[in-house]
Amino acid sequence: MEKIVYMDNNATTRVDPKVVEEMMPFYSQFYGNPSSMYSFAGIAGNKLKKARAKVAALIGAQPEEIIFTSCGTESDSTAIYSALNSNPEKKHIITTRVEHSAIKNLFESLSRKGYKVTFVPVDKMGRLDLDTLYNSLDDHTAVVSVMWANNESGVTFPIEEIARVVKKRGIIFHTDAVQAIGKIPVDVNMAEVDMLSVSGHKIHAPKGVGALYVRKGTKFSPFLIGGHQENGRRGGTENVASIIGFGKAAELAAHHLAQMQTQVSFLRDKLERGLLKHIPHAKVNGDPKMRLPNTTNIGFDYVEGEAILLMLNELGICASSGSACTSGSLEPSHVLRAMGVPFTSAHGSIRFSLSRYSTEHEIDEVIEKVPPIINRLREISPFWADTENLEKGYCSAQ
Amino acid sequence: MEKIVYMDNNATTRVDPKVVEEMMPFYSQFYGNPSSMYSFAGIAGNKLKKARAKVAALIGAQPEEIIFTSCGTESDSTAIYSALNSNPEKKHIITTRVEHSAIKNLFESLSRKGYKVTFVPVDKMGRLDLDTLYNSLDDHTAVVSVMWANNESGVTFPIEEIARVVKKRGIIFHTDAVQAIGKIPVDVNMAEVDMLSVSGHKIHAPKGVGALYVRKGTKFSPFLIGGHQENGRRGGTENVASIIGFGKAAELAAHHLAQMQTQVSFLRDKLERGLLKHIPHAKVNGDPKMRLPNTTNIGFDYVEGEAILLMLNELGICASSGSACTSGSLEPSHVLRAMGVPFTSAHGSIRFSLSRYSTEHEIDEVIEKVPPIINRLREISPFWADTENLEKGYCSAQ
Repeated sequence: MEKIVYMDNNATTRVDPKVVEEMMPFYSQFYGNPSSMYSFAGIAGNKLKKARAKVAALIGAQPEEIIFTSCGTESDSTAIYSALNSNPEKKHIITTRVEHSAIKNLFESLSRKGYKVTFVPVDKMGRLDLDTLYNSLDDHTAVVSVMWANNESGVTFPIEEIARVVKKRGIIFHTDAVQAIGKIPVDVNMAEVDMLSVSGHKIHAPKGVGALYVRKGTKFSPFLIGGHQENGRRGGTENVASIIGFGKAAELAAHHLAQMQTQVSFLRDKLERGLLKHIPHAKVNGDPKMRLPNTTNIGFDYVEGEAILLMLNELGICASSGSACTSGSLEPSHVLRAMGVPFTSAHGSIRFSLSRYSTEHEIDEVIEKVPPIINRLREISPFWADTENLEKGYCSAQ
Repeated sequence: MEKIVYMDNNATTRVDPKVVEEMMPFYSQFYGNPSSMYSFAGIAGNKLKKARAKVAALIGAQPEEIIFTSCGTESDSTAIYSALNSNPEKKHIITTRVEHSAIKNLFESLSRKGYKVTFVPVDKMGRLDLDTLYNSLDDHTAVVSVMWANNESGVTFPIEEIARVVKKRGIIFHTDAVQAIGKIPVDVNMAEVDMLSVSGHKIHAPKGVGALYVRKGTKFSPFLIGGHQENGRRGGTENVASIIGFGKAAELAAHHLAQMQTQVSFLRDKLERGLLKHIPHAKVNGDPKMRLPNTTNIGFDYVEGEAILLMLNELGICASSGSACTSGSLEPSHVLRAMGVPFTSAHGSIRFSLSRYSTEHEIDEVIEKVPPIINRLREISPFWADTENLEKGYCSAQ
């Protein structure tokens, strides 16, 4: 395997070697089941407790407000079903048009089961239409779920304000903060969310572990029914090593948060400027101000995103079109469509997402290698030929 | 940490170092998201594919019949909800009185939601009352779920026969085979089950990964709704490293299966004989013939199981009373109660469960150390004093 330039950190991240180091003793050495009563198992149990405190600390929560799950998707399902079970008579639910498939597909499934779903739109910059959101709140609304930051555009939503308005109406508010934690400050003391989903593998912990924050006092019913684990709130033997890794990753994420706003943000901006400078007919998708510091989503007109990715892949550059969880589909991203990005541009949009491991050298490499790729692809694009001719004053119909 | 004697392998197992070795490259080196389109992520994707084939092979299934989950509990919930969704008009469900809490608590919860639940009893040996099971099958039965092997007593049920009878009635049959795989042959070509749950951490893979076998052609609806992972059958980024570890563990389990029937079974028998020989008023709970080769559950009359475990713990011996998933409760195990084990004995029942790592030296140590513990505890037990007096011909009331 040659060296790769990994620019797809919103899809998943490299597990920090310090995280792996923390996990290692809990495979073959301290492998007890935390539910067991002997001291040997208590070693795992105690470390689990510390991990819970660390994940809680990252979002300003209390340890007992954290329920460990297997992923962001499970956290989301747990939150939504719990909210619905708490309000069995309410059949209206609200979310946005740009959610991750964990919420989007769940709400679409609930819609088929008889729930009335409001999908709140976004504008061309990917900003949420708050008026529509607030006007759709009514006495039948069981839950509102709005993501904290969009995985594709990186655009962030004003969760603190939204939570305040939704809570004032006495409605349960959930946010999918999977892409937000570790990148921007997320604090449940500032944002009155009832429930908040996070995932380990977006912050340099392993895949297969997530958590749901449930504010003290929130009515809760478990999604995974079984043993008494997680204080009776999630059955199943705890994923001990990965939870311990998640704890360490949360600690490191808190430590590196400032670096996101400085170093990572600087590199992202450099990348964006470099690409826009060298490539005509390219533009950033999404609000350039209210945005994650690590993400840029750039639309290159008249080329196919899949073709760009294929050529980037040959050079060892990892980026994505749309979300990893929906890739493989030939449809342009539902997020970009919701933003009204034109078809010609949505198809050729590429997301670059950085991490604290990204280097300036890598950025320079991407700035150097992407423009010739776009040029080559445009040369073989019939749409581009038309554009060129139009710009030169020719009529392509001739 | 002093050396421990680990006799609680039905609670969880040591991760085989060969398993850890397979997992390691997928944390900080090949950390791509298998859903991503570039070659770097394909490395994880390909290895995942191989792991799926290995887990499938352990139970005689096809790779595409395996859905990876986060644990046995999730596998169980996935199976049962899928069966119910496939038969929305049928409101009768059947299980046994001795299931693991993943099924027991789920069925109790469904009972509160309006389902009629038949809990099939067992006899004193822990054997299932097949007549009751078969007679309770009717046209309203949506699903039958019977565990393959009991986690506490080790007693195995005739799944091949049960599956045949249930399937003949056109009813969906699920089995929780979490305790069976790796200990006895489990083959979906011999047993006509529709769905079968397994878990990694009972066969020396890490905690936090399981799988559900779904026979080709079985109607299925996902429990975790989200991305297109697992062929659209389970949303959420795959737990790549742990799944790869599960694959390796499945391969090793197949390799070591014969050893379970010989070496491990021999050690279990030696342990059982040794304890029964040196301790009066002790007896094995459960059918000594139809039983897992690694498990013995022994009732010591007139002592408290918790007290025994506490004293064993001080000697570094790990065993359990009841299931790890219900321990901490002061109630005697629901499994032993279902078997009609008398109160005096059920309270003092201890499960020893061995693995391929168990040594004869460890067995000798347990045989040496347990009898004095039971003696000491009986000396301070008022019930025991009565018994002693009764045996000597005194009347304790005097």
